[in-house]
Amino acid sequence: MDRGYRVAVVGATGAVGTKMIEMLEKTTLPIKELILLASKRSAGKTCVFKGATLVIQELTTTSFIGVDLALFSAGGSISKQFAPEAVKSGAVVIDNTSYFRMDPNVPLVVPEVNAHALAKHQGIIANPNCSTIQMMVALEPIRQHAGLSRIIVSTYQAVSGAGAKAMAELTRESQAYLSGTPADQLAPEIMPAGGDKKHYPIAFNALPQIDVFAEDDYTYEEWKMINETKKIMEDSAIQVAATCVRIPVFSGHSESIYIETKQPAELTAVKEWIKAAPGAVLQDDPSQQIYPQALTSVGKTETFVGRIRKDLDVANGLHLWVVADNLLKGAAWNSIQIAESLHEQSLVRV
Amino acid sequence: MDRGYRVAVVGATGAVGTKMIEMLEKTTLPIKELILLASKRSAGKTCVFKGATLVIQELTTTSFIGVDLALFSAGGSISKQFAPEAVKSGAVVIDNTSYFRMDPNVPLVVPEVNAHALAKHQGIIANPNCSTIQMMVALEPIRQHAGLSRIIVSTYQAVSGAGAKAMAELTRESQAYLSGTPADQLAPEIMPAGGDKKHYPIAFNALPQIDVFAEDDYTYEEWKMINETKKIMEDSAIQVAATCVRIPVFSGHSESIYIETKQPAELTAVKEWIKAAPGAVLQDDPSQQIYPQALTSVGKTETFVGRIRKDLDVANGLHLWVVADNLLKGAAWNSIQIAESLHEQSLVRV
Repeated sequence: MDRGYRVAVVGATGAVGTKMIEMLEKTTLPIKELILLASKRSAGKTCVFKGATLVIQELTTTSFIGVDLALFSAGGSISKQFAPEAVKSGAVVIDNTSYFRMDPNVPLVVPEVNAHALAKHQGIIANPNCSTIQMMVALEPIRQHAGLSRIIVSTYQAVSGAGAKAMAELTRESQAYLSGTPADQLAPEIMPAGGDKKHYPIAFNALPQIDVFAEDDYTYEEWKMINETKKIMEDSAIQVAATCVRIPVFSGHSESIYIETKQPAELTAVKEWIKAAPGAVLQDDPSQQIYPQALTSVGKTETFVGRIRKDLDVANGLHLWVVADNLLKGAAWNSIQIAESLHEQSLVRV
Repeated sequence: MDRGYRVAVVGATGAVGTKMIEMLEKTTLPIKELILLASKRSAGKTCVFKGATLVIQELTTTSFIGVDLALFSAGGSISKQFAPEAVKSGAVVIDNTSYFRMDPNVPLVVPEVNAHALAKHQGIIANPNCSTIQMMVALEPIRQHAGLSRIIVSTYQAVSGAGAKAMAELTRESQAYLSGTPADQLAPEIMPAGGDKKHYPIAFNALPQIDVFAEDDYTYEEWKMINETKKIMEDSAIQVAATCVRIPVFSGHSESIYIETKQPAELTAVKEWIKAAPGAVLQDDPSQQIYPQALTSVGKTETFVGRIRKDLDVANGLHLWVVADNLLKGAAWNSIQIAESLHEQSLVRV
């Protein structure tokens, strides 16, 4: 095609990068050319996109010449080094790492919630953390109708959020444990956090650590949920607390969320708001055992919401169970949606 | 030995029953004779106890003649039918099912918390729900020092809480999934609740349903945590909300607990209270990635407490991560502790 954008994917061979290519097959975004970039190690590998075989190229500072949109998902240090280069070359960057998220000059966007924030971009737009995105899709319709004063979330996160190697580790450990290897001989190398000192088995276990520890004994993952929520909802007064936990699931993050709304919200109304909300799907019928599940969310771009209940003691308290495919809505799909929204708002320009 | 009690275990071949026999090997309780009871199907099987081979007998109404202590863990309907028979025969019953728990004439006991409640027993004592017990051990020291006004808990529960068949289902589904069987062809037969209409895979999934649904769209498991907490702590004013979730772990329940205390509680003080508390072990050093884990709790009788943090917004708010072996402290060991406490208080009489 002649009309359309030159789109680059940085980190094309990773868990999120491969999903970005899949999602780019489905997008309505006009694409003239797709350029796949990765480390020297992966350069030369091929990938099929819309029937054509594309060769993955090594990422260099000259990779972005002529590129309109660059989707980054190759780690924070790569984004730090190459995103400004891409912008200098005239590309708009959508970055899936945490590196730029809290930069006041960088919009942090969940299109269903704050697509308007894109208007102020200066070349780089940040994709929020996976666990934050799905919580925002579920809570934004409630916030719009009843206000939101408080969030307490406990997560049940899948290993794919830590990349393809973490998924391989879950497979290897699970097979070993089922074959009789004792738990203390599973020889974990990645979980809970690749760069941290100690590693623990994730197979048939639950690890209350995602990313490394930071201030006040909260992990960075927990701080991401707290800080990103306030930035996306543009309300620093929302009280947010998070406990982030990795469980032995390959893909699909689940979240047990308690909220307090500013105004009273009836259950039937809340369910209608979720039903009507963009990107959200209500799965909530206890009489038929209908509720969101990680396994059934895989491959879907929506955020699934169920187990909605009134708190028994606090008038404006509500409990929800929220599930989404962390590689899609939590990463690749949200990035593509940002690209689509930039296009619709004629903002694909630095 | 001549002195000591005649102890019966009802449901001797089940996931909890076998652990009860293990724990009876370790108890200081004087045991003269151990009588193992089960359904007709299991009668005739043998079991080794302190070097002696015992033959499992069929449970009948005459099984309790001469029995001093009867430990029940064979399902609510068996307890309903046979516990009163045991009491008629002169035995004191410690029942691990939910059947008698909320009966005002039945003490519901976690020995570290309310051993004094045993004094009023009328023959039957109830062992609380597994997920409640470990929460009580962790929170009681905090309640004693700072009061407790509110609990919001999200659980990460192991399949062994649903019995040996559920453990076999997790094994079978995990092997099938790792061998390439798609998630929608795993043919679940038990999870999330044996007696419910629909079944879902638990392998590499998270199921926000434990037991069946009840009032206000809370499950019975969630209601157990709410009601039992108030009964054990003897405070109906404590606000409790629970979201109970099954995850693919064989044994070891984890819990993400948010509490509000009545008086302010400094983190260093809270950690000291946990350290000094009976049955609780502090595992809380983020700098060394020390926190409780399901896999490392298995086989232990203690309750492990870590990830203790101040809430960032609410003055008296605290977050904790609490883990215990659900078959031991959550069931078998707590029952044995009740027996020991009855013995120490000279209460093994109807």
